[in-house]
Amino acid sequence: MLGLMQDWPLLCHKVLDHAARQHPRRKLISYTDDACVESNYAELRAQALRVAQRLTAEGVRPGERVATLAANGARHLAVWYGALGMGAVYHPLNPRLFPEQVAYIINHAGDRLLFVDPAYVPLLESLADRLTEVRRVVVLCDAARMPPTRLPGAIDYETWLAQVDGDFEWVRVDENAAAGLFYTSGTTGPPKGVLYSHRSIVLLSLTANAPDVYGLSARDVVLMAVPMYHANGWSWPFTVPMAGASLILPGSRLDGASLCEIASRHGATVSGGVPTVWQGFLDHTAKTGLRAPALRRLFIGGSPCPEVMLRAFAQDHGIEVIHVWGMTEMGPTGSACTPTPETAALDGPGRIAWQQRQGRVPFLVELKLADDAGQALPWDDQATGNLNVRGPCIVRRYFGAGDAPLLDDDGYFDTGDVGTIDGNGFIRITDRAKDLIKSGGEWISSVALENVAMMHPAVQEAAAIAVRHPRWDERPLMALVLKPGATLTQPELAEHLATRVPKWWLPDAVVFVEALPHTATGKLDKRRLREHYAGLLLTSGNKI
Amino acid sequence: MLGLMQDWPLLCHKVLDHAARQHPRRKLISYTDDACVESNYAELRAQALRVAQRLTAEGVRPGERVATLAANGARHLAVWYGALGMGAVYHPLNPRLFPEQVAYIINHAGDRLLFVDPAYVPLLESLADRLTEVRRVVVLCDAARMPPTRLPGAIDYETWLAQVDGDFEWVRVDENAAAGLFYTSGTTGPPKGVLYSHRSIVLLSLTANAPDVYGLSARDVVLMAVPMYHANGWSWPFTVPMAGASLILPGSRLDGASLCEIASRHGATVSGGVPTVWQGFLDHTAKTGLRAPALRRLFIGGSPCPEVMLRAFAQDHGIEVIHVWGMTEMGPTGSACTPTPETAALDGPGRIAWQQRQGRVPFLVELKLADDAGQALPWDDQATGNLNVRGPCIVRRYFGAGDAPLLDDDGYFDTGDVGTIDGNGFIRITDRAKDLIKSGGEWISSVALENVAMMHPAVQEAAAIAVRHPRWDERPLMALVLKPGATLTQPELAEHLATRVPKWWLPDAVVFVEALPHTATGKLDKRRLREHYAGLLLTSGNKI
Repeated sequence: MLGLMQDWPLLCHKVLDHAARQHPRRKLISYTDDACVESNYAELRAQALRVAQRLTAEGVRPGERVATLAANGARHLAVWYGALGMGAVYHPLNPRLFPEQVAYIINHAGDRLLFVDPAYVPLLESLADRLTEVRRVVVLCDAARMPPTRLPGAIDYETWLAQVDGDFEWVRVDENAAAGLFYTSGTTGPPKGVLYSHRSIVLLSLTANAPDVYGLSARDVVLMAVPMYHANGWSWPFTVPMAGASLILPGSRLDGASLCEIASRHGATVSGGVPTVWQGFLDHTAKTGLRAPALRRLFIGGSPCPEVMLRAFAQDHGIEVIHVWGMTEMGPTGSACTPTPETAALDGPGRIAWQQRQGRVPFLVELKLADDAGQALPWDDQATGNLNVRGPCIVRRYFGAGDAPLLDDDGYFDTGDVGTIDGNGFIRITDRAKDLIKSGGEWISSVALENVAMMHPAVQEAAAIAVRHPRWDERPLMALVLKPGATLTQPELAEHLATRVPKWWLPDAVVFVEALPHTATGKLDKRRLREHYAGLLLTSGNKI
Repeated sequence: MLGLMQDWPLLCHKVLDHAARQHPRRKLISYTDDACVESNYAELRAQALRVAQRLTAEGVRPGERVATLAANGARHLAVWYGALGMGAVYHPLNPRLFPEQVAYIINHAGDRLLFVDPAYVPLLESLADRLTEVRRVVVLCDAARMPPTRLPGAIDYETWLAQVDGDFEWVRVDENAAAGLFYTSGTTGPPKGVLYSHRSIVLLSLTANAPDVYGLSARDVVLMAVPMYHANGWSWPFTVPMAGASLILPGSRLDGASLCEIASRHGATVSGGVPTVWQGFLDHTAKTGLRAPALRRLFIGGSPCPEVMLRAFAQDHGIEVIHVWGMTEMGPTGSACTPTPETAALDGPGRIAWQQRQGRVPFLVELKLADDAGQALPWDDQATGNLNVRGPCIVRRYFGAGDAPLLDDDGYFDTGDVGTIDGNGFIRITDRAKDLIKSGGEWISSVALENVAMMHPAVQEAAAIAVRHPRWDERPLMALVLKPGATLTQPELAEHLATRVPKWWLPDAVVFVEALPHTATGKLDKRRLREHYAGLLLTSGNKI
């Protein structure tokens, strides 16, 4: 027997309808390279309807992908809602990927229409020969700022949009219809596409705004320092309007000085992003003494937030850092480190140690800690295993990857992250599975080694990777970048590490380098490091 | 093209799975008539699985209704989850309805299995002759407390449950399958059944726990003073475990002294209910000077919260009163009066006036203010119209009511409440449509008249109803209950009202009565008042 409630599909554009109806004048602030434009949700909706109408006139069909190559901005957001609102699929591209990867992704996704920031026109031009499907490029600017280009069908956004009147209604699609496409920048193999449905995005936005995850209210002003092209912008393009909060889209202004100035000018209460971006904010504010006084909560994810950063935000700014964990395949928000009664009273080192965890999962994310055979391990903060997840916002299979099974027999997806879970459900990620170092049958956490190395005042960045060893199978090699002007010897490093990690974890080799390779999302690229040191065979058997 | 995310149906028992997995030891405190039992979500889940297994053994089939006639308690809650978890439909009965209504509802729902508190056994026995389907009554107690009874198949809960071992798995049903059935206590016509689906309950619980509605965190301790049999217990039996908050089920102890003592003993941070229940709390604490110091937020719904109550909670207790609005047909939560930036800074009378509004709707509730022809009216705080709603948690049609169309052409349900909406989306309910008084073609709000009358220190309760009038069609009659020992003359009342409402609103007749009739949910029963005064024809044309 079925219930007798209304059939009301979970569609992404209804989020914008809600914001425009309930919070029509809530501010939407958007930075371009030369301006700051203040708008609101009612205007965003009107613009998105025009985009939807114009895309329809352009011949875009439901399910077709509409690509964007742009920083966070109101036009970019209008293209997302416009595309999904007429049944197409928005598909943001990460401009920081290697150009050949961008070309691969555009072709793999079958993008025919592409919206691009003026700043990325040269990048796109450099790829133009390799793009097999693109037939029209819309540059996100007005006619006056349109750069000269020979990209196919190039036109400026405002001229393109002026051809319709906005008299359009959203297309009602199945809630399981595709709405957004994101490729993972993966450090192994070619990029893989994750195809979000309307349903998965709406459900993720609902659960990600629980009080114990983002917890946004209509009084919040959210500075979106996470690029929209990273993992659905952490769902903020939907979560923020759903909450009726103000949204600030800072364009490419993600340097410390800009973040501080923008947050301070508009009274941002909440922000978030990867640690490197917010290290810039700390550096700038330490130098200048400036503050963003309304800023109270900062969600840090993508990489673990170093302890020194946690402390600096708390002590110098009164800003609470909240770890979040997730990935494109998870919709992307998987967990947040917000207190339970058991952890709420922690302070001092206990609190810092707790804050460094990746948090606990909200409803709609089912979590399993599994050994390599898929068997469940205890949540005792000791057993280390693979973090597997299941739920309506978790990937089932990759786009264009055929029917290759991605889930285990119980429907769980293996995140590739390795860690422990404590008795209160708090995850501690110790490594990426592929980055673990297996020495004599025992695991060494490369992340833990790196964190300890980075606590040394001379070290700016550290990377630990596995290198082959005839006796122990693998042993750690550590690559270090020192701070400008700083010096450090191998014995000094060994002394620093020896009191902080098990003795058998000490690296067998240390190399000092000018810089370390990073992926397009700013993470250490250990695959390239491993390739670089692939020929090395450690034989000393001696620790440093 | 469909998205490629996991197929994970929204099922109510997954809420309990989540709570048991992520918050296994979070306290569940349950009062019976002679005990206070402390348990947790892991134990609740284990018990619910046994209920599900036992119901299956009993021959209950998917879709069949399983009735409960009980106060808020852990066994009652285990029966809900057990029933829905094996595919059946939990169906709570309101013991405060007239006995003939209870019998009507049991038969109409086709209840064959009924779980009853020992205290309600006599009520059930008084109906036994009229129950056509009930074949088994399980009394929610252990063998030692089992009252002697000749109810069909009567057995105590613990003995009944002891016959299974709990080795059971939830049944995976369609997310649109029926999960819960609630009858409205309506003041017109026979009670009508609203059949919730798993999907509607899960979605309501997600959206009702947005930071701007209940906003519960895992640190909250929720004293559930709303009976579970009222409109799905405001969804708290699902919302609270979803948030990982502690839950206190106070049994029948809803008097002021008990509420204060229970809230204080267990550190309740949040509660809610109808105003009459919380008036008891205010009376008790005013008399005794006692406090519930952890209590910070109080959700008041069902009837408007009088201004004096708002003030008393704020000034004497530091408790924030938050108006909520909804009804069984809405899942039930429709709106909450939490601040937007425009209202957050209000204080003094402005804040009190704002707090008396019914609030704004969260995502998943679409709101239309309509005239009698269904045309949309402006949200200008002036235009008064019918509040229509649409969404996945709103009723489509009533249970067992055939295919009679209940929604308008756009899918909206008319709530029967009449009010205004301001430019920030805040609803102000001025009346039930059927309680409006139409005088010379203009509407008089009976609720507004009553509120103003109750501001007089001598007045304990007031009811305004329409009485026929040859010239004006309808004119107001006011029935008043005075406080013990207080006196009030008609001229004194007229003087009090005259400065606070339009002159033409002044009642044509005033009657002083010992008591006013109430419905089973504690609301003024204006239908009975109107019946009582149906013969009256006002002819004076003079106001009081």
